[in-house]
Amino acid sequence: MEVVRGGIVLTGPVVIVLAGCMLQYALLHLAGYDSVLEEDLKQFRQWGSRTPGHPENFETPGVEVTTGPLGQGIANAVGLALAEAHMAARFNKPDAKIVDHYTYCILGDGCNMEGISNEAASLAGHWGLGKLICLYDDNHISIDGDTEIAFTESVDARFDALGWHTIWVKNGNTGYDEIRAAIEEAKSVTDRPTMIKVTTTIGFGSPNKANSYSVHGAALGGKEVEATRQNLGWPYEPFHVPDEVKSHWSRHIDLGSKYQSDWEAAVEAYAQKYPEEGAEFKQLISGELPAGWDAALPEFTPEDAGDATRNLSQRCLNALARTLPGLIGGSADLASSNMTLMKMFGDFQKSTPAERNVRFGVREHAMGAICNGIQQHLGGLIPYCATFFIFTDYLRAAMRISALSETGVIYVMTHDSIGLGEDGPTHQPIEHLASFRAMPNMLMLRPADGNETSGAYKVAVLNRKRPSTLALSRQKLPNLPGTSIDNVLLGAYAISDDSKDNKPDVILMASGSELEIAAKAADVLRGEGKTVKVVSFVCWELFEEQSAEYKEKLLPSSVTARVSVEAGATFGWERYVGLEGRAIGVDHFGASAPANILYKEFGITVDNVVAKAKEVMA
Amino acid sequence: MEVVRGGIVLTGPVVIVLAGCMLQYALLHLAGYDSVLEEDLKQFRQWGSRTPGHPENFETPGVEVTTGPLGQGIANAVGLALAEAHMAARFNKPDAKIVDHYTYCILGDGCNMEGISNEAASLAGHWGLGKLICLYDDNHISIDGDTEIAFTESVDARFDALGWHTIWVKNGNTGYDEIRAAIEEAKSVTDRPTMIKVTTTIGFGSPNKANSYSVHGAALGGKEVEATRQNLGWPYEPFHVPDEVKSHWSRHIDLGSKYQSDWEAAVEAYAQKYPEEGAEFKQLISGELPAGWDAALPEFTPEDAGDATRNLSQRCLNALARTLPGLIGGSADLASSNMTLMKMFGDFQKSTPAERNVRFGVREHAMGAICNGIQQHLGGLIPYCATFFIFTDYLRAAMRISALSETGVIYVMTHDSIGLGEDGPTHQPIEHLASFRAMPNMLMLRPADGNETSGAYKVAVLNRKRPSTLALSRQKLPNLPGTSIDNVLLGAYAISDDSKDNKPDVILMASGSELEIAAKAADVLRGEGKTVKVVSFVCWELFEEQSAEYKEKLLPSSVTARVSVEAGATFGWERYVGLEGRAIGVDHFGASAPANILYKEFGITVDNVVAKAKEVMA
Repeated sequence: MEVVRGGIVLTGPVVIVLAGCMLQYALLHLAGYDSVLEEDLKQFRQWGSRTPGHPENFETPGVEVTTGPLGQGIANAVGLALAEAHMAARFNKPDAKIVDHYTYCILGDGCNMEGISNEAASLAGHWGLGKLICLYDDNHISIDGDTEIAFTESVDARFDALGWHTIWVKNGNTGYDEIRAAIEEAKSVTDRPTMIKVTTTIGFGSPNKANSYSVHGAALGGKEVEATRQNLGWPYEPFHVPDEVKSHWSRHIDLGSKYQSDWEAAVEAYAQKYPEEGAEFKQLISGELPAGWDAALPEFTPEDAGDATRNLSQRCLNALARTLPGLIGGSADLASSNMTLMKMFGDFQKSTPAERNVRFGVREHAMGAICNGIQQHLGGLIPYCATFFIFTDYLRAAMRISALSETGVIYVMTHDSIGLGEDGPTHQPIEHLASFRAMPNMLMLRPADGNETSGAYKVAVLNRKRPSTLALSRQKLPNLPGTSIDNVLLGAYAISDDSKDNKPDVILMASGSELEIAAKAADVLRGEGKTVKVVSFVCWELFEEQSAEYKEKLLPSSVTARVSVEAGATFGWERYVGLEGRAIGVDHFGASAPANILYKEFGITVDNVVAKAKEVMA
Repeated sequence: MEVVRGGIVLTGPVVIVLAGCMLQYALLHLAGYDSVLEEDLKQFRQWGSRTPGHPENFETPGVEVTTGPLGQGIANAVGLALAEAHMAARFNKPDAKIVDHYTYCILGDGCNMEGISNEAASLAGHWGLGKLICLYDDNHISIDGDTEIAFTESVDARFDALGWHTIWVKNGNTGYDEIRAAIEEAKSVTDRPTMIKVTTTIGFGSPNKANSYSVHGAALGGKEVEATRQNLGWPYEPFHVPDEVKSHWSRHIDLGSKYQSDWEAAVEAYAQKYPEEGAEFKQLISGELPAGWDAALPEFTPEDAGDATRNLSQRCLNALARTLPGLIGGSADLASSNMTLMKMFGDFQKSTPAERNVRFGVREHAMGAICNGIQQHLGGLIPYCATFFIFTDYLRAAMRISALSETGVIYVMTHDSIGLGEDGPTHQPIEHLASFRAMPNMLMLRPADGNETSGAYKVAVLNRKRPSTLALSRQKLPNLPGTSIDNVLLGAYAISDDSKDNKPDVILMASGSELEIAAKAADVLRGEGKTVKVVSFVCWELFEEQSAEYKEKLLPSSVTARVSVEAGATFGWERYVGLEGRAIGVDHFGASAPANILYKEFGITVDNVVAKAKEVMA
């Protein structure tokens, strides 16, 4: 059985000539999706419409993923195809193929220029994703004009080199049979993905604007629309769909329903015959988390030996791998540094697609976008991916799409500060915490120890509609008194407070590896007779969502003596320390040296916290 | 004449087997650079050393660019080679080739997996950069182990497809003659860049660790070092350079001096014969700005017709193109939207390399890194590059390298807020201003009108050691009373203040397109008898560098009634509005609709500023 994703079927008798985004809406409309009615088409790019300027999965049912930024789509498609291959290998039986569909992707010249598309295509070739079929709209025009000015490589030869099967349809304007034949050929090649280069004329049919960049972003205009209608022999009113077309397309409504009910019946039969696998499959389809999944998360006491949060993260991943059948992911060639291998599984590879450790190679950007595709394929799959925190700069665009498209990817980002030491400033994040705290719908978590790492995973897994970024230490950290798994869900909470009536002499705040420093500074100050509240700021976004009462209780407005300490940019900390407080951080690039020396040289020390606390208490 | 960049010459009788970063230091040391003495080698990765964990141009003379993040180096090399081709075409005469050198680049498996390297290589092929010679260290090992697990494409075939000449040296461990021959062959191919695939064994010579990932990031360890010395027949003490090697390499010191003085004499002779070109060439070499260059910047009065700051930016670029001979740059396929064409010049292309408009195609990441290479090639070249502000997410890693490596690239980023309208949330920056304000050494400028756009260019051009990011509007903005070119250099300044003794009832702050809203809100409030100071916050970083007196004068601590308005994340504004102020902004993703509707729906309005001002004054 073939499940056609997104309602896009390219076998109709009429080829609709429309710009990319509008094309998707028009196809959904024709295919009978009630999410795109004629009124919706007329509201293209208007406030509150279901037809925004670029298709978004959260606005328009039938839109699979949120694209727009070039190259994301092909990488999403690789993720969708990976998910299909994985699920098929895990669940299909010789007598029951309950997962069996193609992934189609249409991409343009711009997509093919972007580095992310080469990364994704290299992986698709490596993995031999034979059911991924891409159509490259080779129209030779991008926004700056003819692609001759910047894009003269041989795209087919490049895809050949990447291990794809390639086909060239020379007349993409009217060569419908050739396109059909190419798709059939693509299906017959099962060990490699296929790239069908379809040479077309942009604005085909427009007598004066075809084959020019002016068709790309702007409307044709009344006169030229009229001329195009004349030229193509299209006598109908705007938005009118002739009966012949309507009846041809509307068969997809019944056909789709039949596919759906056949498939549901097949799944039921499967579940009868293979109860264990069937239950797991249904759970993955439902997208709901298995009951009690979080009991697996390890809990710690201060007596437990300290560890780097990247190692604690690995314990969490390995614990969760047993209770979350949808957990799948890996690293961009840093598995042994990011500590992201699930030890009970092998690698997802061409010959072992049922496995759950994914080797992305040094391809951070595609990694993020592939994870978006995996999650969008199936709610129950929980993709995670990893690199050094600094290299979020390489995949930030994909991470933003996770946030925008409500995709709960877990970003496991280790080596989260100058604490990584000798690799130096090219590898030391400074502004990265702030940059993600400023990003809407992204949960930026920086756990301080074992309990908080477990708590961070609890948050990340629970949030299936929000991505989480976990900033994890390279260096060893102690398990601190007062930390808790569940308090991480509050975003910020006190790990200690020896004041009476919630009126401490000073509030110390920190996240991650600096919570230990704040706790030690509190000990010093308390030794000198001061009362101190120490607050762990593990996730600002979650704290902002708490009640005004909780916030006021944690940070009483009357206490203006406040000091924050974090091994990163102080940017943004004024929100909590106020104009009278002090934010200790690193507002310059790092350096190459052992971590302990950097902390000392840059003033991320107990002494400095104590000194600043005395300043603000004075 | 051949200028060998970075002192790396691969023709010696001894091949030094060392990890990448250490290799570069060792070669500099052997070649006689006094920036890397034996003591420096021993201080590898230590605090204050000239041999940090990854080579940085600002730490170690002889290091051309700052790399470390994979793929940046090859893109830098394309920029270096572009600069050579451009300068050669502009200045060489049939009888005087004063610019004539090769650019060598060594890259590994990881670099070749990164999307940025494909982008850069596609451009190098398109531009036919025949004097770019890359050596691909094909050792089949990356951090996660054998590249078979994630990287099975045919790299040579891909480079062929990108228009490169490719050569394969099968025995890179000891095939010195083959490497020499390959380099000679590469030089003989002048119309295409060359990729020499050199198959090697990582850790060659180490009996137990060769050909394994354990050689990549960790030291061999004492025992294995001993075994390797034995195996290679290397009897010398650590750091000892045998006389034979020393004398072979030290000839480069005299040779290099001779090359340098020959070349200086050639430039003098050139300047005698071609005084005009000679003067310009010397100016470009010196890196100093021509006297009076900034007089070209247009100045405006409120009576001048308003315009989008992206259009005003184009006026600045075209004015500066006449006074700055080093200005060179372009857009990632958005020239007509970013407004970045210098109208008096043609395109830098294979057949017209003397021209100064660069067409990067949809390759943002390579674009940024290529600009870093251009600037590092020659202090007098002033590269700029452009895309939509949102797509800084695609090139952020290169922008950070600009900031870290003290490279004054000008990032022209248009469509800077929800004000771009219909393209919707995938195209609307929200957190981007905050994310760059948090980045060290990056100047984030958001001009409000004509004068401020000219001021932003003044800042950007003056700062040759800091990159500038200009956030520019798609929409039309009026020329406001009180703005000034030179006040932009202060970072923030008052455009109006009707208070006595600097005690306004309220301070309104804004940047860019919202300064108009703040000014109008001030008019309303003044009409109701309030005194108001309106502050333009065009560049936070520059404001932070002003004296305490200036800051206190602009934002008197006694005035806590403060409101900011900016069409982006409010994150960070607490620094200036304080805990008692109000920050009006957009802390969620945007939407697809006309800009004026988005401003209204999201509360970025005069009414809302007035309302919030009344709250804080109450």
